[in-house]
Amino acid sequence: MAHNLLQGKRGIIFGALDENSIAWKVALRAKEEGASIVLTNAPIALRMGKIKELADLCNAEIIPADATSIEDLTNLINKSVEVLGGKLDFMLHSIGMSPNIRNEKSYGDLNYDWFLKTLDISALSFHKMMQVAEKQDAMNEYGSIVGLSYIAAQRVFPHYTDMAQAKATLESIARSYGHRFGKLKKVRVNTISQSPTMTTAGQGIDGFDAFYNFADQLSPLGNASADECADYTITLFSDLTRKVTMQNLFHDGGFSYMGISEELMEMMANKK
Amino acid sequence: MAHNLLQGKRGIIFGALDENSIAWKVALRAKEEGASIVLTNAPIALRMGKIKELADLCNAEIIPADATSIEDLTNLINKSVEVLGGKLDFMLHSIGMSPNIRNEKSYGDLNYDWFLKTLDISALSFHKMMQVAEKQDAMNEYGSIVGLSYIAAQRVFPHYTDMAQAKATLESIARSYGHRFGKLKKVRVNTISQSPTMTTAGQGIDGFDAFYNFADQLSPLGNASADECADYTITLFSDLTRKVTMQNLFHDGGFSYMGISEELMEMMANKK
Amino acid sequence: MAHNLLQGKRGIIFGALDENSIAWKVALRAKEEGASIVLTNAPIALRMGKIKELADLCNAEIIPADATSIEDLTNLINKSVEVLGGKLDFMLHSIGMSPNIRNEKSYGDLNYDWFLKTLDISALSFHKMMQVAEKQDAMNEYGSIVGLSYIAAQRVFPHYTDMAQAKATLESIARSYGHRFGKLKKVRVNTISQSPTMTTAGQGIDGFDAFYNFADQLSPLGNASADECADYTITLFSDLTRKVTMQNLFHDGGFSYMGISEELMEMMANKK
Amino acid sequence: MAHNLLQGKRGIIFGALDENSIAWKVALRAKEEGASIVLTNAPIALRMGKIKELADLCNAEIIPADATSIEDLTNLINKSVEVLGGKLDFMLHSIGMSPNIRNEKSYGDLNYDWFLKTLDISALSFHKMMQVAEKQDAMNEYGSIVGLSYIAAQRVFPHYTDMAQAKATLESIARSYGHRFGKLKKVRVNTISQSPTMTTAGQGIDGFDAFYNFADQLSPLGNASADECADYTITLFSDLTRKVTMQNLFHDGGFSYMGISEELMEMMANKK
Repeated sequence: MAHNLLQGKRGIIFGALDENSIAWKVALRAKEEGASIVLTNAPIALRMGKIKELADLCNAEIIPADATSIEDLTNLINKSVEVLGGKLDFMLHSIGMSPNIRNEKSYGDLNYDWFLKTLDISALSFHKMMQVAEKQDAMNEYGSIVGLSYIAAQRVFPHYTDMAQAKATLESIARSYGHRFGKLKKVRVNTISQSPTMTTAGQGIDGFDAFYNFADQLSPLGNASADECADYTITLFSDLTRKVTMQNLFHDGGFSYMGISEELMEMMANKK
Repeated sequence: MAHNLLQGKRGIIFGALDENSIAWKVALRAKEEGASIVLTNAPIALRMGKIKELADLCNAEIIPADATSIEDLTNLINKSVEVLGGKLDFMLHSIGMSPNIRNEKSYGDLNYDWFLKTLDISALSFHKMMQVAEKQDAMNEYGSIVGLSYIAAQRVFPHYTDMAQAKATLESIARSYGHRFGKLKKVRVNTISQSPTMTTAGQGIDGFDAFYNFADQLSPLGNASADECADYTITLFSDLTRKVTMQNLFHDGGFSYMGISEELMEMMANKK
Repeated sequence: MAHNLLQGKRGIIFGALDENSIAWKVALRAKEEGASIVLTNAPIALRMGKIKELADLCNAEIIPADATSIEDLTNLINKSVEVLGGKLDFMLHSIGMSPNIRNEKSYGDLNYDWFLKTLDISALSFHKMMQVAEKQDAMNEYGSIVGLSYIAAQRVFPHYTDMAQAKATLESIARSYGHRFGKLKKVRVNTISQSPTMTTAGQGIDGFDAFYNFADQLSPLGNASADECADYTITLFSDLTRKVTMQNLFHDGGFSYMGISEELMEMMANKK
Repeated sequence: MAHNLLQGKRGIIFGALDENSIAWKVALRAKEEGASIVLTNAPIALRMGKIKELADLCNAEIIPADATSIEDLTNLINKSVEVLGGKLDFMLHSIGMSPNIRNEKSYGDLNYDWFLKTLDISALSFHKMMQVAEKQDAMNEYGSIVGLSYIAAQRVFPHYTDMAQAKATLESIARSYGHRFGKLKKVRVNTISQSPTMTTAGQGIDGFDAFYNFADQLSPLGNASADECADYTITLFSDLTRKVTMQNLFHDGGFSYMGISEELMEMMANKK
């Protein structure tokens, strides 16, 4: 059910790959709620994914951009304003990649060039898209910017290795740039800390099933799905949340505040 | 602008006193979004306030209840289900009172009977309304319960004295009952930690203006108003936030993550 | 090995019952580090426990006090200053009891008189002992006050029921009174959030073994023991930590920042 | 007064520049408590500072190392074990530098090569020193590693720009490596979040005086000094804190949990 929550708004969605992507669902829901959008991803992701299919469904243009390149981001943002016919009201950052995880490096054997690459791709890109948007004066007042995060920013999930630092950095950027953009333009900046989600990227992480199941069991409402995350993101893009900024918002069925569940207690009791 | 976000939903609003109350604004917005509501407050507050005016505006029934009385709450919840024609989808708890603050007791000279009263009225009432709702099987699946809190639960605001403990208890109850109600009925429970707000209750606190101004100056977006709080509460009652539970959500223009502002730095520099 | 960390200091230890108590271990270590102490507990606990044995080991006087009674606390603190020959440098609060847990009430069936009793005994007593100490002007400058807490203040452990609220209140009092006592007398106030510990009280909680084992498995260093907690408490009483105040300090082998362990991932994987 | 808390222990102190440095004070106190130490800093800092004076006072060897270079760190750690006659019991990381701050770049005009440099120098160096120590098997069981942090990791201090992200990353590394090193060797890893401190580095930050004064006024006990930080660090290196790990420990006179002070309220009231 659509509610016209984004009627007349314009935005850019970063990071849709295929129909399992959270960004994909957000694009569909934003469209449904009345927004006009531009889709973007790295050239290589565009080749591998099915983003054209999504563009058709959303009646959206695709503008390729490497999110670590200031040049690409400047082009993307300028063209988006042109294509959409006005300044932007929202942006979604759904980008994360760790060469150390791809290459199965343990946390005691990290490659530091890759560590910096993880931070650049997964976190600094969030700063870059905001710095470029500010410099191009591309955001409308009361706009809303959202990045997708994960609770590894707060707690240790061993297989997540240097992505934990990337998410901590991402959330820190949301606070720092949220302050700046709020003062300048009343733009709010938040991160959503989402349950483990059955995306193509998520499933690539070693041991993903185990921590998906663990989180699902520990969360009183179970894990939040990509569709539910899209719904939640819409509320943050809407005018109903204009004073929510610099926050990291857990969208996880309650996982973040659970200590132990009765199911886990039984497992522990049976173990003996 | 209404979005039909609460079409067909039923709820109870605790704590509306007059047109400055957050609960008053939530009632109006809930109505606007399609909900049917019951209004309630303590008998004495009903006499002093203008709730009848609100009841007319919302086409709502008023059912008096002392929120510390299990008997009153049971009557309120049963009658509400009857009047509204079905189980409840949401409840708002906007209740707080400290006899120690009223009587201007300093934090080093608290009256302990009053301290317990502060906790009973301002925090245990939140547990009571949920325990009664559970026992009466009065909540629909995927319902949403919200309590209003304040950042004194996390940090020290000297004039707030024992209300700091009341808010810490309130937020702790949200987590504990959120777990329980989530498992039982998929009902979510959250608190909103709201900016200092120019309500009749708020303004009663000694030094309120100073900390209103301090928060307003430190928050990049300024303080959140009662109207904005009502908008935000609507998103939490809607189906777009079904996996958000056990959270304390800051609605404060960014105050919660500010360390210092440039304005404060200037004030400090000039002071010398 | 003693280090003379408390040479010449005087303090009161609340809550030692038997040789498994954390307070028991703190008393012994405080003595060893050069302090003079007074032991106290409720009259009934004094009858049941072995505190006389401890008093002999520590060369300490026992002064009975119900920690919820202002009269008893005033007597205790005045007599302690007299017996010890000067104002106090430290106090340990290790007190907790929930009639709801004792009577196996579930969180959806709490008795509210007992809930208030839980808060009064387990949390307000912490405020009371500080308010009395302040009124009697019984604390030396740079003194240190410690309360024992548990991570249920932040996250849900279902069997802990209303003790979760008691611990949240206790930690909130540490912040509020820490502010006050710091300004007045440079006294610091902190809580230690300790691992589940094999005390006589701890073992009384239903399902204790399961969450002891869970915490032990999830913590990289394993659970902290009562002896280790005593060592840590000594550092907080010593002059080496004079600017640490209003903190809740996790002493838990790392449990508080763990998301999942490799062992749990294996358990989850095998479960399927 | 010394307490022999580090009798027979060996460690490396990174980052002492001159007698205002926290690392300088920690070196002196570690020596006083019975430890043998090696001092290290970047070659350029060694030329500019007075570290030789410190080396004489501590009877310590100086081994230069660029903390971003694996080669230098490997050499440092191997030589230290040799010089000290055994594996290490502690390390202090007190390193931070932002080319963006040095060059007075605003947060909306960051140079991204410099941003990565800030992260590499101020945060990844902490990971590198631990990874090298692990690979060289240079840490004793129950060792302790401490990094110095600042509350800008949690909240916004506008002039701190990308150092906020560096500190967030540093604290995240403490959690992740704390888990790893705890499992492997029972080594604990923590950060101390210290008050603004009148070091040569600190005073270089624009507006330092204003936020030093602000923090001093807001903290009930005033700002913590470098000497007090050294005392606190000693407790973390000692055997009295063996189960404290993966924590960020505020050492700040209570600043971290203050909302507003009475002094600030007066300033706000007078402002009108």
